[in-house]
Amino acid sequence: MQVSEAEWTDTEKTIARTAFDQAYGREIEALLKQVRADASTLVELSDLWRLHDFLSAKRHQVEGKYDYQYAALPFVFAGLVKDGWLHLQELEGLSKDKLAKINSLANM
Amino acid sequence: MQVSEAEWTDTEKTIARTAFDQAYGREIEALLKQVRADASTLVELSDLWRLHDFLSAKRHQVEGKYDYQYAALPFVFAGLVKDGWLHLQELEGLSKDKLAKINSLANM
Repeated sequence: MQVSEAEWTDTEKTIARTAFDQAYGREIEALLKQVRADASTLVELSDLWRLHDFLSAKRHQVEGKYDYQYAALPFVFAGLVKDGWLHLQELEGLSKDKLAKINSLANM
Repeated sequence: MQVSEAEWTDTEKTIARTAFDQAYGREIEALLKQVRADASTLVELSDLWRLHDFLSAKRHQVEGKYDYQYAALPFVFAGLVKDGWLHLQELEGLSKDKLAKINSLANM
């Protein structure tokens, strides 16, 4: 089910890179905003360790998720659509089979 | 060189507990203040991961440091004096040999 780099046209590569960067930018901006807000309400040590646990989980998740490998991109995009960081319309221009695959994975 | 519980009088135990709690309160309050301030200036993801690294180190350090075992207290107090969270005067009332030991360890 993987889609190797050779199966991506130059136009598709440009669309994919733009969509990837947009989703990344949105998620990171939201994360930074959330941490700034959460941190401003820290009162107790337990709040601080809760923030630490949250950052540990997010770091693991973000570093694993934004992996720009052509073979993995349909899965990455499906996850981003599912989580609301990307709209399927922003991937318009990709081949029909890629879009169908992403859409189907996003609805799983 | 360890000082067992039997070697602490009731008065010394009260002094020790008060000093311990004060130092803990000061360090935690300063830590919370620092994290609130640092977090308010987060701009990039690398800032966030730097904060995460800082919290990982602090958590390890704080959880290891505030160990209320009588045998370990002179070492704990020496560290707190050295790091500025406790003044030696706040331990007045402890026996001369305990104070001398703490002072000597704090100056190492």
